Amino acid sequence: MTDDINAFVPGIDVRIEGRAGGPLSGLTFAAKDLFDVAGHPTGGGTLDWARGRPIPTRHAWAVQTLLDAGATLIGKTITDEVSLGILGENPHYGTPLNPRAPDRVPGGSSSGSAAAVAAALCDTALGTDTGGSVRVPASFCGLYGIRPTHGRLPLDGMLPQAPSSDTTGWFARDVATFARVSSAMLGEAIVDAKPSRLVVAVDAFGFADQETATALQPLVKRLAQLAGDTREDVLAPPGLSVWGRAQRTLQPWEAWITFRDWVDRANPRVAFGVARGLAASSMIAESERGWADLMRREARARMAHLLAPGTIVCLPTTPFPAPPKGQSLSALNPVRDRILCLCAHGGLTGVPQVTVPGATVDGLPVGLSIIGARGADAMLVGVARALEDMR
Amino acid sequence: MTDDINAFVPGIDVRIEGRAGGPLSGLTFAAKDLFDVAGHPTGGGTLDWARGRPIPTRHAWAVQTLLDAGATLIGKTITDEVSLGILGENPHYGTPLNPRAPDRVPGGSSSGSAAAVAAALCDTALGTDTGGSVRVPASFCGLYGIRPTHGRLPLDGMLPQAPSSDTTGWFARDVATFARVSSAMLGEAIVDAKPSRLVVAVDAFGFADQETATALQPLVKRLAQLAGDTREDVLAPPGLSVWGRAQRTLQPWEAWITFRDWVDRANPRVAFGVARGLAASSMIAESERGWADLMRREARARMAHLLAPGTIVCLPTTPFPAPPKGQSLSALNPVRDRILCLCAHGGLTGVPQVTVPGATVDGLPVGLSIIGARGADAMLVGVARALEDMR
Repeated sequence: MTDDINAFVPGIDVRIEGRAGGPLSGLTFAAKDLFDVAGHPTGGGTLDWARGRPIPTRHAWAVQTLLDAGATLIGKTITDEVSLGILGENPHYGTPLNPRAPDRVPGGSSSGSAAAVAAALCDTALGTDTGGSVRVPASFCGLYGIRPTHGRLPLDGMLPQAPSSDTTGWFARDVATFARVSSAMLGEAIVDAKPSRLVVAVDAFGFADQETATALQPLVKRLAQLAGDTREDVLAPPGLSVWGRAQRTLQPWEAWITFRDWVDRANPRVAFGVARGLAASSMIAESERGWADLMRREARARMAHLLAPGTIVCLPTTPFPAPPKGQSLSALNPVRDRILCLCAHGGLTGVPQVTVPGATVDGLPVGLSIIGARGADAMLVGVARALEDMR
Repeated sequence: MTDDINAFVPGIDVRIEGRAGGPLSGLTFAAKDLFDVAGHPTGGGTLDWARGRPIPTRHAWAVQTLLDAGATLIGKTITDEVSLGILGENPHYGTPLNPRAPDRVPGGSSSGSAAAVAAALCDTALGTDTGGSVRVPASFCGLYGIRPTHGRLPLDGMLPQAPSSDTTGWFARDVATFARVSSAMLGEAIVDAKPSRLVVAVDAFGFADQETATALQPLVKRLAQLAGDTREDVLAPPGLSVWGRAQRTLQPWEAWITFRDWVDRANPRVAFGVARGLAASSMIAESERGWADLMRREARARMAHLLAPGTIVCLPTTPFPAPPKGQSLSALNPVRDRILCLCAHGGLTGVPQVTVPGATVDGLPVGLSIIGARGADAMLVGVARALEDMR
């Protein structure tokens, strides 16, 4: 399948019809090339992951679930190399086009999935989110996206990165499709939800660019209305950067454990920046990991306390809209650091998060995120739908 | 130009006739893809070095010198990525075949040049030697090879790695061709040379595998005869591993300075091991570099003292014959370390070195090296020829 959007992995021509009469009948979907599709190699966005591995004989759980629900698979999408990237630039297959901002990155690592949905090449698409890989491209491409509660959905047949943070997520352009797909994936009806309490993560808004924080205010106001005109401010103790540091200790170390045998055996071709990151990950000290693990326990306790039933927290999904494509590594380092810092709570605490489109800065999309308690995934989708209905 | 040997860079079809009536008329040569050939990109063994750079409009000095002497250029050869490798495995273009040991690596980084000459696809070939990149593939492929005195030959149009160690070298199958090409490159007649004193680097022989040291003894005996039955033993103070450490501090740091802007701008696709090496190089401490610079000064003084006029030092070119292809990074690390340790004196002190074939271990070639004082390049070539004439 070829396309101007460059969303799909070249050379993989796949179409699998969904089960007739399912709740998603009539919808099409694509799967990030981290998900097994029987009969096709799982490439993981690199030339060397599939080499020497057997072709999968079963679909990944997420693929099978959408097929069983009636959606038709139309392709496998480009990802950052073995999911190690947040911007969506892939040196082997090229960077998928961000249809909403063609001179900008699409966001990653679920870059092709987001691009395919944003360009209306399919109705929904599977991504993975370990450190922001669904949330960030959803924000940059103007889509709905979800990072479900960690541990809720089976990850069978999904190429892992950091198991204690890995999740399967999905994208949609419109909230009705988003709710249909979410219901099928979560195995739960999406009911109209009114939260009883809105908490605004004011430190996260302060961390974002001023233009982005301002652009998101109309969405925040509608959320506050929806929550019965409640609105409280909260600052994440002990601070976003401390949580970010903990996540950026735990996640890369787990990624190194995941990939080190492959790296040693295959000496794979990867972008310099990815290899440098893996090499740095291999040197993370045990003492630092110990500290980060304590911080994770503390963060989970704090988040559970904050997210009482009916409470939602809102924050900017990304600190800014998509940055320009093709920048140097040194220019992108601080950009990447800020994005990951604003996403770190997801992998660190495992709470579900939905990002909703609707705001723009200079015409570039940027998303607002809603977080709920563990297991409140369907409620968050319901809030997103109710928010749209208020327009 | 295609070939079973996989010596040549795919997609570069070049043939440039040498000047008629020159001293090398009738000979063909190939140039490692670090040398500029006008009208063709200089690829440097990677997919991303040439990107965004102008096509060279002039030949490199070494290419022009061979053309002017009458040799005909027939192709550009595969190299380890931007010369950062000693084994000759290239993930983008494949590993050139070692015709003398098809299941073994050819050695690198001048892998394609050595393979092309060993397979008789051309008579001679240009390589570069910073830390062993001519000496090692010559030893592994059973060829004559030279690392000239550092700073003697112009390096214009050659992709640099570590300028204080970079040299241009060449290969040949037979000593007559080796002498003809050497004369043209050095601009000096090759006279029959009898050294007055042979010094055997006994620590280097001890550092090599026992089988290799033993296999080289007949060549050492002939050398001693040639030197009027002189033979002294020497141990390199303060030890090969200390010299190796100094060189492996200075050379990678210079390589990082050479490549860091490219790496930052292009985020190039490279093998994980190469990227990891560059990332580690970027972290070499100034204090360590200061120590290594003192060691280099000391090593140069010691080498100059040892290499009085007429003196040659002999040592194994490599500690063992070519290792098997396709090993894991962790298996290859100690292999690479030992090879580089035995080659470090070249980049560290700048003295010329010629490696001669003729010994084998279990049928696999391994070379004996002769070192002379700075500027004694032609004398070393003459010794190699005299050694052959003694058979």
